[in-house]
Amino acid sequence: MDREKAIEIVGKKIKGPRFQHTLGVVDTAIKLAEKYGANREQAEIAAIFHDYAKLLPISELKNILKEGQEDDSLLLYHPELWHGPAAAYILKKEFSIEDEEILNSIRFHTTGRSNMSLLEKVIYLADYIEPGRSFPGVNETRELAEKDLDQAVFKAISNTISFLVEKKAAIYPDTFEAYNSFVFNTDS
Amino acid sequence: MDREKAIEIVGKKIKGPRFQHTLGVVDTAIKLAEKYGANREQAEIAAIFHDYAKLLPISELKNILKEGQEDDSLLLYHPELWHGPAAAYILKKEFSIEDEEILNSIRFHTTGRSNMSLLEKVIYLADYIEPGRSFPGVNETRELAEKDLDQAVFKAISNTISFLVEKKAAIYPDTFEAYNSFVFNTDS
Repeated sequence: MDREKAIEIVGKKIKGPRFQHTLGVVDTAIKLAEKYGANREQAEIAAIFHDYAKLLPISELKNILKEGQEDDSLLLYHPELWHGPAAAYILKKEFSIEDEEILNSIRFHTTGRSNMSLLEKVIYLADYIEPGRSFPGVNETRELAEKDLDQAVFKAISNTISFLVEKKAAIYPDTFEAYNSFVFNTDS
Repeated sequence: MDREKAIEIVGKKIKGPRFQHTLGVVDTAIKLAEKYGANREQAEIAAIFHDYAKLLPISELKNILKEGQEDDSLLLYHPELWHGPAAAYILKKEFSIEDEEILNSIRFHTTGRSNMSLLEKVIYLADYIEPGRSFPGVNETRELAEKDLDQAVFKAISNTISFLVEKKAAIYPDTFEAYNSFVFNTDS
Protein backbone atom coordinates (compact mmCIF):
# COMPACT_ATOMS: atom_id res chain seq x y z
CA MET A 1 0.00 0.00 0.00
CA ASP A 2 1.32 3.46 -0.85
CA ARG A 3 1.45 6.45 1.42
CA GLU A 4 -1.46 8.35 -0.15
CA LYS A 5 -3.83 5.40 0.04
CA ALA A 6 -2.83 4.68 3.65
CA ILE A 7 -3.26 8.31 4.70
CA GLU A 8 -6.65 8.39 3.02
CA ILE A 9 -7.83 5.29 4.93
CA VAL A 10 -6.57 6.57 8.27
CA GLY A 11 -7.92 10.06 7.64
CA LYS A 12 -11.43 8.65 7.57
CA LYS A 13 -11.03 7.13 11.04
CA ILE A 14 -8.89 9.66 12.84
CA LYS A 15 -9.47 13.39 12.89
CA GLY A 16 -8.11 16.54 14.49
CA PRO A 17 -5.32 16.39 17.08
CA ARG A 18 -5.09 12.60 16.87
CA PHE A 19 -4.48 12.87 13.12
CA GLN A 20 -1.85 15.54 13.72
CA HIS A 21 -0.22 13.16 16.20
CA THR A 22 -0.20 10.43 13.54
CA LEU A 23 1.50 12.74 11.02
CA GLY A 24 4.08 13.62 13.68
CA VAL A 25 4.74 9.93 14.28
CA VAL A 26 5.10 9.36 10.53
CA ASP A 27 7.73 12.11 10.14
CA THR A 28 9.60 10.99 13.24
CA ALA A 29 9.48 7.30 12.30
CA ILE A 30 10.90 8.03 8.84
CA LYS A 31 13.75 10.08 10.35
CA LEU A 32 14.51 7.35 12.90
CA ALA A 33 14.33 4.63 10.23
CA GLU A 34 16.81 6.50 8.04
CA LYS A 35 19.09 7.24 10.96
CA TYR A 36 19.15 3.71 12.38
CA GLY A 37 18.81 1.66 9.18
CA ALA A 38 15.24 0.41 9.44
CA ASN A 39 13.18 0.02 6.27
CA ARG A 40 11.73 3.44 5.39
CA GLU A 41 8.58 2.10 3.69
CA GLN A 42 7.72 -0.27 6.53
CA ALA A 43 8.25 2.51 9.06
CA GLU A 44 6.04 4.87 7.09
CA ILE A 45 3.12 2.43 6.71
CA ALA A 46 3.38 1.25 10.34
CA ALA A 47 3.40 4.85 11.59
CA ILE A 48 0.44 5.88 9.45
CA PHE A 49 -1.65 3.00 10.78
CA HIS A 50 -0.36 2.71 14.36
CA ASP A 51 -3.37 4.47 15.95
CA TYR A 52 -5.95 3.22 13.48
CA ALA A 53 -8.01 1.64 16.29
CA LYS A 54 -7.36 4.37 18.87
CA LEU A 55 -10.79 5.95 18.75
CA LEU A 56 -12.88 2.79 18.68
CA PRO A 57 -15.24 2.27 21.63
CA ILE A 58 -13.88 0.04 24.39
CA SER A 59 -16.60 -2.54 23.81
CA GLU A 60 -15.63 -2.82 20.16
CA LEU A 61 -11.93 -3.10 20.99
CA LYS A 62 -12.77 -5.89 23.40
CA ASN A 63 -14.72 -7.78 20.72
CA ILE A 64 -11.91 -7.35 18.23
CA LEU A 65 -9.34 -8.72 20.68
CA LYS A 66 -11.55 -11.71 21.42
CA GLU A 67 -12.31 -12.35 17.75
CA GLY A 68 -8.71 -11.88 16.75
CA GLN A 69 -7.44 -14.14 19.51
CA GLU A 70 -4.92 -11.51 20.41
CA ASP A 71 -3.45 -11.95 23.88
CA ASP A 72 -6.45 -12.35 26.19
CA SER A 73 -4.58 -11.21 29.26
CA LEU A 74 -4.64 -7.69 27.79
CA LEU A 75 -8.27 -7.45 28.82
CA LEU A 76 -7.21 -7.46 32.48
CA TYR A 77 -5.17 -4.32 31.88
CA HIS A 78 -5.96 -0.73 30.95
CA PRO A 79 -7.98 -0.31 27.72
CA GLU A 80 -5.31 2.17 26.56
CA LEU A 81 -3.24 -0.95 25.81
CA TRP A 82 -5.85 -2.52 23.53
CA HIS A 83 -5.72 -0.38 20.39
CA GLY A 84 -2.35 -1.61 19.11
CA PRO A 85 -3.23 -5.31 18.92
CA ALA A 86 -6.73 -4.40 17.73
CA ALA A 87 -5.30 -2.32 14.86
CA ALA A 88 -2.95 -5.15 13.86
CA TYR A 89 -5.91 -7.50 13.62
CA ILE A 90 -8.12 -5.09 11.62
CA LEU A 91 -5.33 -4.14 9.22
CA LYS A 92 -4.64 -7.76 8.38
CA LYS A 93 -8.30 -8.65 8.01
CA GLU A 94 -9.69 -5.59 6.25
CA PHE A 95 -6.72 -4.22 4.34
CA SER A 96 -4.71 -7.38 3.72
CA ILE A 97 -1.60 -5.99 5.36
CA GLU A 98 0.33 -9.20 5.89
CA ASP A 99 3.80 -7.89 6.73
CA GLU A 100 4.31 -9.24 10.25
CA GLU A 101 7.08 -6.76 10.94
CA ILE A 102 4.71 -3.90 10.28
CA LEU A 103 1.90 -5.60 12.21
CA ASN A 104 4.12 -6.31 15.22
CA SER A 105 5.40 -2.75 15.36
CA ILE A 106 1.76 -1.61 15.50
CA ARG A 107 0.76 -4.40 17.90
CA PHE A 108 3.47 -3.54 20.44
CA HIS A 109 3.70 0.23 19.99
CA THR A 110 2.12 0.98 23.39
CA THR A 111 3.47 -1.86 25.53
CA GLY A 112 6.83 -2.70 24.00
CA ARG A 113 7.98 -6.27 24.55
CA SER A 114 11.07 -8.33 25.20
CA ASN A 115 13.72 -8.19 22.44
CA MET A 116 11.95 -5.64 20.23
CA SER A 117 12.88 -5.57 16.54
CA LEU A 118 14.49 -2.50 14.97
CA LEU A 119 11.16 -1.49 13.39
CA GLU A 120 9.29 -2.01 16.67
CA LYS A 121 11.77 0.28 18.43
CA VAL A 122 11.41 2.93 15.72
CA ILE A 123 7.61 3.00 15.93
CA TYR A 124 7.54 2.82 19.75
CA LEU A 125 9.98 5.71 20.02
CA ALA A 126 8.40 7.81 17.26
CA ASP A 127 5.07 7.53 19.06
CA TYR A 128 6.74 8.64 22.31
CA ILE A 129 8.76 11.61 21.04
CA GLU A 130 6.91 13.02 18.00
CA PRO A 131 6.94 16.83 18.13
CA GLY A 132 3.39 17.13 19.51
CA ARG A 133 4.27 15.20 22.68
CA SER A 134 4.77 17.14 25.87
CA PHE A 135 5.31 15.40 29.21
CA PRO A 136 8.07 15.04 31.80
CA GLY A 137 11.08 13.22 30.39
CA VAL A 138 10.19 13.60 26.71
CA ASN A 139 13.03 16.05 25.94
CA GLU A 140 15.63 13.82 27.55
CA THR A 141 14.29 10.94 25.46
CA ARG A 142 14.44 13.10 22.29
CA GLU A 143 18.08 13.88 23.03
CA LEU A 144 18.87 10.19 23.51
CA ALA A 145 17.07 9.43 20.23
CA GLU A 146 19.68 11.56 18.44
CA LYS A 147 22.46 9.37 19.78
CA ASP A 148 21.34 5.85 20.57
CA LEU A 149 18.10 4.12 19.64
CA ASP A 150 18.28 1.49 22.40
CA GLN A 151 19.06 4.03 25.10
CA ALA A 152 16.15 6.16 23.96
CA VAL A 153 13.64 3.30 23.92
CA PHE A 154 14.96 2.08 27.27
CA LYS A 155 14.43 5.57 28.68
CA ALA A 156 10.88 5.73 27.31
CA ILE A 157 10.03 2.31 28.79
CA SER A 158 11.61 3.28 32.11
CA ASN A 159 9.65 6.55 32.21
CA THR A 160 6.48 4.61 31.51
CA ILE A 161 7.10 2.18 34.37
CA SER A 162 7.92 5.03 36.78
CA PHE A 163 4.76 6.84 35.70
CA LEU A 164 2.63 3.74 36.27
CA VAL A 165 4.18 3.06 39.70
CA GLU A 166 3.53 6.70 40.64
CA LYS A 167 -0.13 6.20 39.67
CA LYS A 168 -0.31 2.80 41.43
CA ALA A 169 -1.38 1.35 38.08
CA ALA A 170 -0.79 -2.15 36.77
CA ILE A 171 2.24 -2.70 34.55
CA TYR A 172 1.59 -4.94 31.57
CA PRO A 173 4.03 -7.89 31.60
CA ASP A 174 5.34 -7.09 28.08
CA THR A 175 6.39 -3.64 29.29
CA PHE A 176 8.19 -5.07 32.28
CA GLU A 177 9.87 -7.67 30.05
CA ALA A 178 10.90 -4.95 27.58
CA TYR A 179 12.51 -3.08 30.48
CA ASN A 180 14.49 -6.10 31.66
CA SER A 181 15.54 -6.98 28.11
CA PHE A 182 17.08 -3.52 27.72
CA VAL A 183 18.86 -3.91 31.07
CA PHE A 184 20.32 -7.21 29.95
CA ASN A 185 21.07 -6.20 26.34
CA THR A 186 22.49 -2.70 26.63
CA ASP A 187 25.66 -1.45 28.23
CA SER A 188 23.98 1.37 30.11
CA MET B 1 12.88 -24.33 67.73
CA ASP B 2 12.74 -21.76 70.52
CA ARG B 3 13.89 -18.16 70.36
CA GLU B 4 17.08 -18.62 72.41
CA LYS B 5 18.31 -21.54 70.34
CA ALA B 6 17.52 -19.71 67.08
CA ILE B 7 19.27 -16.52 68.22
CA GLU B 8 22.30 -18.58 69.27
CA ILE B 9 22.54 -20.24 65.84
CA VAL B 10 22.16 -16.96 63.96
CA GLY B 11 24.56 -15.14 66.28
CA LYS B 12 27.35 -17.47 65.16
CA LYS B 13 26.83 -16.51 61.51
CA ILE B 14 25.88 -12.86 61.71
CA LYS B 15 27.72 -10.22 63.69
CA GLY B 16 27.70 -6.49 64.32
CA PRO B 17 25.31 -4.19 62.42
CA ARG B 18 23.79 -7.08 60.48
CA PHE B 19 22.90 -8.79 63.78
CA GLN B 20 21.43 -5.53 65.07
CA HIS B 21 19.36 -5.38 61.89
CA THR B 22 18.12 -8.91 62.55
CA LEU B 23 17.07 -8.02 66.08
CA GLY B 24 15.23 -4.98 64.67
CA VAL B 25 13.42 -7.19 62.19
CA VAL B 26 12.47 -9.61 64.99
CA ASP B 27 10.93 -6.86 67.14
CA THR B 28 9.14 -5.32 64.17
CA ALA B 29 7.89 -8.66 62.86
CA ILE B 30 6.42 -9.58 66.25
CA LYS B 31 4.64 -6.24 66.47
CA LEU B 32 3.28 -6.57 62.94
CA ALA B 33 2.22 -10.18 63.58
CA GLU B 34 0.30 -9.15 66.71
CA LYS B 35 -1.26 -6.16 64.96
CA TYR B 36 -2.37 -8.01 61.84
CA GLY B 37 -3.11 -11.47 63.25
CA ALA B 38 -0.17 -13.49 61.96
CA ASN B 39 1.27 -16.27 64.11
CA ARG B 40 3.71 -14.70 66.60
CA GLU B 41 6.01 -17.73 66.88
CA GLN B 42 6.30 -18.20 63.12
CA ALA B 43 7.03 -14.52 62.66
CA GLU B 44 9.69 -14.61 65.37
CA ILE B 45 11.54 -17.64 63.98
CA ALA B 46 11.29 -16.39 60.38
CA ALA B 47 12.63 -12.98 61.38
CA ILE B 48 15.51 -14.41 63.38
CA PHE B 49 16.63 -16.55 60.45
CA HIS B 50 15.72 -14.31 57.49
CA ASP B 51 19.30 -13.11 56.86
CA TYR B 52 21.02 -16.34 57.90
CA ALA B 53 22.71 -16.65 54.47
CA LYS B 54 23.31 -12.92 53.97
CA LEU B 55 27.03 -12.97 54.57
CA LEU B 56 27.89 -16.10 52.62
CA PRO B 57 30.26 -15.63 49.66
CA ILE B 58 28.52 -15.30 46.30
CA SER B 59 30.13 -18.50 45.02
CA GLU B 60 28.72 -20.43 47.97
CA LEU B 61 25.26 -18.91 47.52
CA LYS B 62 25.36 -19.94 43.88
CA ASN B 63 26.24 -23.52 44.80
CA ILE B 64 23.48 -23.66 47.39
CA LEU B 65 20.89 -22.43 44.88
CA LYS B 66 22.01 -25.01 42.36
CA GLU B 67 22.11 -27.82 44.92
CA GLY B 68 18.79 -26.81 46.41
CA GLN B 69 17.13 -26.51 43.01
CA GLU B 70 15.77 -23.17 44.03
CA ASP B 71 14.64 -21.04 41.10
CA ASP B 72 17.56 -21.06 38.65
CA SER B 73 16.53 -17.82 36.97
CA LEU B 74 17.64 -16.04 40.17
CA LEU B 75 21.23 -16.53 39.07
CA LEU B 76 20.64 -14.10 36.17
CA TYR B 77 19.74 -11.38 38.67
CA HIS B 78 21.60 -9.48 41.36
CA PRO B 79 23.28 -11.68 44.03
CA GLU B 80 21.49 -9.57 46.65
CA LEU B 81 18.43 -11.62 45.75
CA TRP B 82 20.06 -14.97 46.44
CA HIS B 83 20.33 -15.07 50.21
CA GLY B 84 16.62 -15.57 50.96
CA PRO B 85 16.16 -18.77 48.93
CA ALA B 86 19.60 -19.96 50.05
CA ALA B 87 18.67 -19.50 53.70
CA ALA B 88 15.40 -21.39 53.20
CA TYR B 89 17.35 -24.31 51.76
CA ILE B 90 19.99 -24.38 54.50
CA LEU B 91 17.45 -24.07 57.31
CA LYS B 92 15.48 -27.02 56.03
CA LYS B 93 18.55 -29.15 55.43
CA GLU B 94 20.69 -28.32 58.44
CA PHE B 95 18.19 -27.34 61.11
CA SER B 96 15.17 -29.37 60.05
CA ILE B 97 12.92 -26.34 59.83
CA GLU B 98 10.07 -27.80 57.80
CA ASP B 99 7.38 -25.15 58.22
CA GLU B 100 6.83 -24.02 54.63
CA GLU B 101 5.16 -20.81 55.77
CA ILE B 102 8.28 -19.86 57.67
CA LEU B 103 10.53 -21.00 54.83
CA ASN B 104 8.55 -19.07 52.21
CA SER B 105 8.58 -15.89 54.24
CA ILE B 106 12.38 -16.20 54.36
CA ARG B 107 12.63 -17.28 50.71
CA PHE B 108 10.68 -14.27 49.44
CA HIS B 109 11.70 -11.62 51.94
CA THR B 110 13.81 -9.69 49.40
CA THR B 111 11.81 -10.15 46.19
CA GLY B 112 8.24 -10.50 47.34
CA ARG B 113 6.00 -12.47 45.01
CA SER B 114 2.47 -12.61 43.67
CA ASN B 115 -0.25 -13.15 46.29
CA MET B 116 2.02 -13.08 49.33
CA SER B 117 0.77 -14.78 52.50
CA LEU B 118 0.15 -12.82 55.69
CA LEU B 119 3.42 -14.09 57.19
CA GLU B 120 5.35 -13.26 54.01
CA LYS B 121 4.02 -9.71 54.13
CA VAL B 122 4.96 -9.37 57.80
CA ILE B 123 8.56 -10.49 57.24
CA TYR B 124 8.97 -8.50 54.02
CA LEU B 125 7.72 -5.35 55.68
CA ALA B 126 9.60 -5.86 58.95
CA ASP B 127 12.82 -6.18 56.96
CA TYR B 128 11.99 -2.96 55.13
CA ILE B 129 10.97 -0.75 58.04
CA GLU B 130 12.86 -2.03 61.11
CA PRO B 131 14.15 0.93 63.17
CA GLY B 132 17.72 0.72 61.82
CA ARG B 133 16.59 1.33 58.22
CA SER B 134 17.13 4.79 56.76
CA PHE B 135 16.40 5.53 53.11
CA PRO B 136 13.98 7.65 51.07
CA GLY B 137 10.40 6.53 51.55
CA VAL B 138 10.95 4.45 54.68
CA ASN B 139 9.06 6.82 56.99
CA GLU B 140 6.06 6.94 54.71
CA THR B 141 6.08 3.14 54.65
CA ARG B 142 6.33 3.03 58.48
CA GLU B 143 3.28 5.27 58.72
CA LEU B 144 1.34 3.04 56.35
CA ALA B 145 2.40 0.00 58.40
CA GLU B 146 0.51 1.49 61.34
CA LYS B 147 -2.70 1.56 59.33
CA ASP B 148 -2.78 -1.04 56.57
CA LEU B 149 -0.44 -3.96 56.00
CA ASP B 150 -1.21 -4.32 52.28
CA GLN B 151 -0.78 -0.62 51.58
CA ALA B 152 2.55 -0.67 53.39
CA VAL B 153 3.91 -3.70 51.55
CA PHE B 154 2.62 -2.27 48.25
CA LYS B 155 4.45 0.96 49.03
CA ALA B 156 7.68 -0.90 49.83
CA ILE B 157 7.47 -2.93 46.61
CA SER B 158 6.69 0.22 44.61
CA ASN B 159 9.65 2.06 46.15
CA THR B 160 11.88 -0.88 45.29
CA ILE B 161 10.78 -0.88 41.64
CA SER B 162 11.26 2.90 41.37
CA PHE B 163 14.72 2.57 42.93
CA LEU B 164 15.71 -0.17 40.47
CA VAL B 165 14.40 1.79 37.46
CA GLU B 166 16.35 4.83 38.67
CA LYS B 167 19.48 2.65 38.78
CA LYS B 168 18.69 1.02 35.40
CA ALA B 169 18.82 -2.31 37.21
CA ALA B 170 16.92 -5.48 36.37
CA ILE B 171 13.67 -6.12 38.21
CA TYR B 172 13.18 -9.71 39.31
CA PRO B 173 9.89 -11.07 37.91
CA ASP B 174 8.55 -12.01 41.37
CA THR B 175 8.90 -8.37 42.45
CA PHE B 176 7.05 -7.13 39.39
CA GLU B 177 4.35 -9.78 39.94
CA ALA B 178 4.05 -8.77 43.60
CA TYR B 179 3.50 -5.17 42.46
CA ASN B 180 0.74 -6.10 40.01
CA SER B 181 -0.91 -8.42 42.53
CA PHE B 182 -1.22 -5.51 44.98
CA VAL B 183 -2.63 -3.30 42.21
CA PHE B 184 -5.25 -5.93 41.42
CA ASN B 185 -6.01 -6.95 45.03
CA THR B 186 -6.13 -3.67 46.93
CA ASP B 187 -8.47 -0.74 46.69
CA SER B 188 -5.74 1.84 46.52
